Amino acid sequence: MQRFPRENCGIFGVYGHPEASKLTYFGLYALQHRGQESAGIVVSDGKEIHEHKGMGLVPEVFDESILNSLPGHIAIGHVRYSTTGFSLLRNAQPFVVYHLGMTLAIAHNGNLINAYDLRKQLEEDGAIFQSTMDSEIIIHLWAHYFYLGMEEGLAKALSKVKGAYSLVLMTEDTLIAARDPNGFRPLCLGKLKNGGYIIASETCALDLIEAKYIRDVEPGEILFINDKGLHSIYLPPAPRHSHCIFELIYFARPDSRIFGRNVYLFRKAQGEELAKETKIEADLVMPFPDSGNYVAIGYAQAANLPFEIGMIRNHYVGRTFIQPSPTMRDFGVKIKLNPVKELLKDKRIVILEDSIIRGTTCRSRIKTLREIGVKEIHLLVSCPPHCFPCYYGIDFSSKGELIAASKSIEEIRKFLNLDSLHYLSMDGLLRASDIPKQQLCLACFNGEYPILLEREFSKTWLERHGA
Amino acid sequence: MQRFPRENCGIFGVYGHPEASKLTYFGLYALQHRGQESAGIVVSDGKEIHEHKGMGLVPEVFDESILNSLPGHIAIGHVRYSTTGFSLLRNAQPFVVYHLGMTLAIAHNGNLINAYDLRKQLEEDGAIFQSTMDSEIIIHLWAHYFYLGMEEGLAKALSKVKGAYSLVLMTEDTLIAARDPNGFRPLCLGKLKNGGYIIASETCALDLIEAKYIRDVEPGEILFINDKGLHSIYLPPAPRHSHCIFELIYFARPDSRIFGRNVYLFRKAQGEELAKETKIEADLVMPFPDSGNYVAIGYAQAANLPFEIGMIRNHYVGRTFIQPSPTMRDFGVKIKLNPVKELLKDKRIVILEDSIIRGTTCRSRIKTLREIGVKEIHLLVSCPPHCFPCYYGIDFSSKGELIAASKSIEEIRKFLNLDSLHYLSMDGLLRASDIPKQQLCLACFNGEYPILLEREFSKTWLERHGA
Amino acid sequence: MQRFPRENCGIFGVYGHPEASKLTYFGLYALQHRGQESAGIVVSDGKEIHEHKGMGLVPEVFDESILNSLPGHIAIGHVRYSTTGFSLLRNAQPFVVYHLGMTLAIAHNGNLINAYDLRKQLEEDGAIFQSTMDSEIIIHLWAHYFYLGMEEGLAKALSKVKGAYSLVLMTEDTLIAARDPNGFRPLCLGKLKNGGYIIASETCALDLIEAKYIRDVEPGEILFINDKGLHSIYLPPAPRHSHCIFELIYFARPDSRIFGRNVYLFRKAQGEELAKETKIEADLVMPFPDSGNYVAIGYAQAANLPFEIGMIRNHYVGRTFIQPSPTMRDFGVKIKLNPVKELLKDKRIVILEDSIIRGTTCRSRIKTLREIGVKEIHLLVSCPPHCFPCYYGIDFSSKGELIAASKSIEEIRKFLNLDSLHYLSMDGLLRASDIPKQQLCLACFNGEYPILLEREFSKTWLERHGA
Amino acid sequence: MQRFPRENCGIFGVYGHPEASKLTYFGLYALQHRGQESAGIVVSDGKEIHEHKGMGLVPEVFDESILNSLPGHIAIGHVRYSTTGFSLLRNAQPFVVYHLGMTLAIAHNGNLINAYDLRKQLEEDGAIFQSTMDSEIIIHLWAHYFYLGMEEGLAKALSKVKGAYSLVLMTEDTLIAARDPNGFRPLCLGKLKNGGYIIASETCALDLIEAKYIRDVEPGEILFINDKGLHSIYLPPAPRHSHCIFELIYFARPDSRIFGRNVYLFRKAQGEELAKETKIEADLVMPFPDSGNYVAIGYAQAANLPFEIGMIRNHYVGRTFIQPSPTMRDFGVKIKLNPVKELLKDKRIVILEDSIIRGTTCRSRIKTLREIGVKEIHLLVSCPPHCFPCYYGIDFSSKGELIAASKSIEEIRKFLNLDSLHYLSMDGLLRASDIPKQQLCLACFNGEYPILLEREFSKTWLERHGA
Repeated sequence: MQRFPRENCGIFGVYGHPEASKLTYFGLYALQHRGQESAGIVVSDGKEIHEHKGMGLVPEVFDESILNSLPGHIAIGHVRYSTTGFSLLRNAQPFVVYHLGMTLAIAHNGNLINAYDLRKQLEEDGAIFQSTMDSEIIIHLWAHYFYLGMEEGLAKALSKVKGAYSLVLMTEDTLIAARDPNGFRPLCLGKLKNGGYIIASETCALDLIEAKYIRDVEPGEILFINDKGLHSIYLPPAPRHSHCIFELIYFARPDSRIFGRNVYLFRKAQGEELAKETKIEADLVMPFPDSGNYVAIGYAQAANLPFEIGMIRNHYVGRTFIQPSPTMRDFGVKIKLNPVKELLKDKRIVILEDSIIRGTTCRSRIKTLREIGVKEIHLLVSCPPHCFPCYYGIDFSSKGELIAASKSIEEIRKFLNLDSLHYLSMDGLLRASDIPKQQLCLACFNGEYPILLEREFSKTWLERHGA
Repeated sequence: MQRFPRENCGIFGVYGHPEASKLTYFGLYALQHRGQESAGIVVSDGKEIHEHKGMGLVPEVFDESILNSLPGHIAIGHVRYSTTGFSLLRNAQPFVVYHLGMTLAIAHNGNLINAYDLRKQLEEDGAIFQSTMDSEIIIHLWAHYFYLGMEEGLAKALSKVKGAYSLVLMTEDTLIAARDPNGFRPLCLGKLKNGGYIIASETCALDLIEAKYIRDVEPGEILFINDKGLHSIYLPPAPRHSHCIFELIYFARPDSRIFGRNVYLFRKAQGEELAKETKIEADLVMPFPDSGNYVAIGYAQAANLPFEIGMIRNHYVGRTFIQPSPTMRDFGVKIKLNPVKELLKDKRIVILEDSIIRGTTCRSRIKTLREIGVKEIHLLVSCPPHCFPCYYGIDFSSKGELIAASKSIEEIRKFLNLDSLHYLSMDGLLRASDIPKQQLCLACFNGEYPILLEREFSKTWLERHGA
Repeated sequence: MQRFPRENCGIFGVYGHPEASKLTYFGLYALQHRGQESAGIVVSDGKEIHEHKGMGLVPEVFDESILNSLPGHIAIGHVRYSTTGFSLLRNAQPFVVYHLGMTLAIAHNGNLINAYDLRKQLEEDGAIFQSTMDSEIIIHLWAHYFYLGMEEGLAKALSKVKGAYSLVLMTEDTLIAARDPNGFRPLCLGKLKNGGYIIASETCALDLIEAKYIRDVEPGEILFINDKGLHSIYLPPAPRHSHCIFELIYFARPDSRIFGRNVYLFRKAQGEELAKETKIEADLVMPFPDSGNYVAIGYAQAANLPFEIGMIRNHYVGRTFIQPSPTMRDFGVKIKLNPVKELLKDKRIVILEDSIIRGTTCRSRIKTLREIGVKEIHLLVSCPPHCFPCYYGIDFSSKGELIAASKSIEEIRKFLNLDSLHYLSMDGLLRASDIPKQQLCLACFNGEYPILLEREFSKTWLERHGA
Repeated sequence: MQRFPRENCGIFGVYGHPEASKLTYFGLYALQHRGQESAGIVVSDGKEIHEHKGMGLVPEVFDESILNSLPGHIAIGHVRYSTTGFSLLRNAQPFVVYHLGMTLAIAHNGNLINAYDLRKQLEEDGAIFQSTMDSEIIIHLWAHYFYLGMEEGLAKALSKVKGAYSLVLMTEDTLIAARDPNGFRPLCLGKLKNGGYIIASETCALDLIEAKYIRDVEPGEILFINDKGLHSIYLPPAPRHSHCIFELIYFARPDSRIFGRNVYLFRKAQGEELAKETKIEADLVMPFPDSGNYVAIGYAQAANLPFEIGMIRNHYVGRTFIQPSPTMRDFGVKIKLNPVKELLKDKRIVILEDSIIRGTTCRSRIKTLREIGVKEIHLLVSCPPHCFPCYYGIDFSSKGELIAASKSIEEIRKFLNLDSLHYLSMDGLLRASDIPKQQLCLACFNGEYPILLEREFSKTWLERHGA
């Protein structure tokens, strides 16, 4: 799948390391796949807070001298999703505010569903906003309930908020992690060799900085870390957990462990389930790189077919790419992936892909393969058809753009010019996940939303009215 | 005087020109002398608001493509003073916020004296702040009283605020100008040839864009300009006006007219008054460029002595200047000004300067002149000794740094190594100004503050507690 | 293998396309793996020549407006290898000079072995040099023999030159390609749909821009393309061809066809030969990404073992990476590759790698794998031990740094902490290549240099004496 | 006069200071008025040479870290003139080449008149050129005659060259200064307090770095400075000296002493001569800033009229200025200079200007003055009408653009809309200069060229054929 579902973020926090900002830099590097639009780090030495944010990748936003200007032993960081359109430094995180002589900072992964109502209410009470971020609502609520105390105020604030959120927050002397009661997005706790603590969206960030994984931050938990140690308070539990299946299918890195499951092994298992559900006569199996790699390995092993890397990825394709002229229109696809003609000509091939959102990129790739003389093309998708939008932080765009929402599988097969097209069944997906169905959010496949929307809310609204 | 008093700003607004952001660019260019640290423009096409801000001079912050991305017929702009120390994009103006579906923008010149109390109160009510700017307090108050209506809410907000402010504000469809009831800082209204309106800190900005000067925005006036035309409401009048004498002496451009007085002619008159008050046998008269130029011309004519430009200014000295090594310490002074030895050697000279704050720069210049063999050096200062700090927007720093607060005139003369030193008397200054004493703020000379401080407030406080 | 052998370049030329510079941009993009240090394009509209060069990757050096400032239908381009140390824009290519009213440009891939003597002789005749590039010698010789005519002068110049070179050259109206008589480096000719011609280091550049591969530029051929069509002249033939085996093993992209052989299939064949030569009891096969990918696929299929991607590559690791502090020393390795613990723990694994130069990176990776509990590690290298330096354009550094030059295989195994280590035999390598031994340069393995060195020449010399 | 004559440069050299590059930085800062397009420094520690060049002003091209990367005790530097059109880093100086194991560097101020012939001859001998600079010809000739020895080779090379040149050159261990036998351009020698030596275009650069002026480098002198001390060799003398009068009138800084005359006093003397030659009834005297400042002071004193600064200069107008839209066309003039209406309205004024080249800028300024109601405008020009082009380094453009070449004084007066217009006579100019007529080049006024042109040479030629 091409990088279409794009609204997701990575968050990271450190408590108790003398080079907290540098650790956060490395942590964000490991989480860069969760967001490429902007990056930010806020750091405290216990008294003063410094911050730096910018548009671009982590190594574009930070250099040695900037990191040196961010001293302290507590830090939080954030990487934000990449959009194709308009975006703003104004919306980059972490978000820092001043309140009653304290400095508060927040970094947020997820999406609130009652943001519109909360914001309206706050504004009617005289609040003013500087961004269109949900995170700003949380911090306004926190300030509003600050009279209850820092901890109780935050609990009260989060009890007002509905939707998906994994958070790291910071005051001058405390690191805070919080996760919504449904546990939509991952968040884990790790420990450094020197005794310090780490909060991260995924375990791959712990591996990089040699922190030991301790446990996930629990759904509904608010965890405070300061010089008195760790302690937690809890939000009222949700009726059920609803871990986002798309984190496992697509977002998380294969070397991470989220929701108790290693992502690599989950994806191989998807391929194995696909092998059980289909029977295809073919010469070789290949992924659309890199999203289908692990599913393809699992499928090839289970189906006993040769695994090949039939399309070669150009590792140097970055974001500052020149748009081809109209006469060079196809170069855009080929610059990323070039098929190996000598390998694929006259062959019957099975391609593995992790999802089909709009189908346009997939279609151009199939066209390229047909042009070099591939004999048969069978496409296997490692999840059920994708029919419903997500309100909890994955931006599949509106329902109208989801190809499976308006076309039958046979219509999609024709549109993509395939010999056959198979989707993994819901049962197969659940077996691969090894997680009980009632603990997952599968709404994008079955429309069963774990939290009800109070009104049709979309990022669009705020952008129209606020930004 | 060297660029020491540094907390001042330039503001500019346009209503009714299709290229409002470009006009604002030119307007800010003309006001660049009022602030070199940051520049910003906010523009509206009646529906949507766009903004751009950055650190640096106007032409460094804006280029053609940025201006093209700022469409609309209403705009406000701001240039901020240059500091030698730490400063932040976070504090750049105009300041934009979102409130109840509206976008509000503000640009502020001046300083509030009850900022600390107002901010504390707002925070206790749950407000959160993003900057350390006074301007943010004004906009919070406006939001707080918005239930009274946009106009009345602003009047109510400003009635709570004490101190010096000239403001331009903007909503999606309205340009607003406001000036504190004391009229500390200048602000004028002009009219474009196409019928549009301009608000500017000084008339030199009107000249550049060929707008006709109409009148000053009156002390206590809040002026609204939108598609229904112009109308004003008024704040309760202050007991007296208190126009800042330092605007005339130092800040304003000589080609501007402020407080009803042309600045060039005022400064020449200062020189003429000095000639009445002193009698010096000398060979020539020269200014310390460029601040003493016009005073020197006035003095030379009145004293019937030759006017010379005895120290040559390097026009290319910019802000990104390499610090000289310890062994090259004196280069820093000489890179800006080099005396013309052939002109000055063995001469008795009178130097005109507009003020002496700390005296250090002045001292190095005198030293350079002594080294090339000047025979006698007489320094004339075009105002009385500068003994008191300013709380209304001019950052002379704390009282401790004002040389005249701790040294007698004779001590200063010795410190500077002068043959003689004369300050213009208060009476001479008032005669030059042609403005009644009770309409001027002369606090930096006589300590008579037109508005009383409720507590010792300084920018330092906020920086310690908030930023 | 880590990106150690680093002195190689990519070259590209277009004749007969109205957007020649844009095509060159795309061509260089496809050749970016051959050089990441600098990029340059020179273009001609038949009369005037424009150029742009810069340090960095192709999309960093060129943007839309720069390409628009490079009009014309003839162009040549160059990407230069990345070094860890010092490098200069002065040495970026193509190199442009003025001579007798003509503009000449050259882009060079390879290394001359009589550069020192030629340069010395030219300088003694009064020539002055602006760079330390071999290419400058070629163009000086061309100018020297220009009295023989443009074509004969170039042939005469190249007859004086010894070593490896694939060249594209350009005058205002002619595109020229040339390849040394030994054919060390690849160079191919393609045809555009519109009838124009392309010269490129590898066929992958033809694929991207939809040019059809016609043939290789032959060893010893000088090919002129202008408005009279194509014609060639030939240098005296070399006693034998000597295509660089390392181009196939390491440098070229797997989707390219060079020296008549597809690179992907060659690398798979290496893996198959390794499977014939070794017999290992193991649970899975994995590459060191990405260099070992295709060998590993070939090996896994032939040995009938599961193929896995056991170490996950961070796709966002760029070149502007912060150096870890001493206490974070291991992060540097892990930021690029993280092993999948859940997959590898307690397993017996076979790792495929394309070569071992110094062994240091390999050693750290093995260490990381040991730490997560891998049971047995068997390393297979897809070529013989690497014992001799290269004088024809591959910078393995001096002989002293080649681990295989000073250590036995058993010593290397111990140094790397492996359970076993196997190198592919020379026979196995030749079988995989499907190219007669006498047409290959295998000097880095067997020390049999196809062209003799006249003196010990190294880049170091020129840098010491010239740059 | 507006900054029209633009082809001039500033050069600087240091021998014997541990921070030679930093001294050169300051020296170039002081010479910035001689060239704003590019800046460069080359430095040697006795063994190795480092260089840095870039487009822009000195502080834009160099920062602390760049200067720190330029170690050594010998350095030369160059600032190049600013053009409105196209210019190239390729042509930035100093120019560095490698020859016979030596590194040679050159920085040049002036223009050769036999460049075309010399270059053609060199190219026919096989030389290749990298730039369109005259300087490259000098260094080619030097290399050509290097067999005569370093010193004699340079003397031989310079004996072949005709035209205007002041040069600083450098090898790894020697600083060299040279000046053409006519002495067109200034060049002086100074001594540092630590015993080191300085070469500079003007004495103002000596003042800044506290070097003592020793003497001018003599016309025809080649001065070598190395660890054996200073020694000179001499070119055959020219029949006469021909110091450029325009250096005194326009280019040099008023605080400099060139050709034995202080520039400030010369310009005042021009004003005094003008006062002798004209008799005008007026209310005040003012310059067009800043070029007419000193002439105006001299005139006002001699004519006993009040001196005023009637037009105010915006000190912040830089080079990255947005072009006004067609409807804002006049802003471009006003952004630089704004007249003081209150001072000038209804007055009879005398304006002093140093020259009129095309007259267009002057005309717009007069128009602006007429618009604010000035009663009478009398313009005095401090030199005779400017009728002939310069071939020795001042780029007045072709003869066609010189207004005085095609219009009578009365026609110019009408074109500019003046009440009267007076030019200083040649005799007056010579009296002001205090230099014998036969030692000056006055060709731009009287067409008597001290060196004959062998063919019509212009920069255009090389640009058409070479760049």
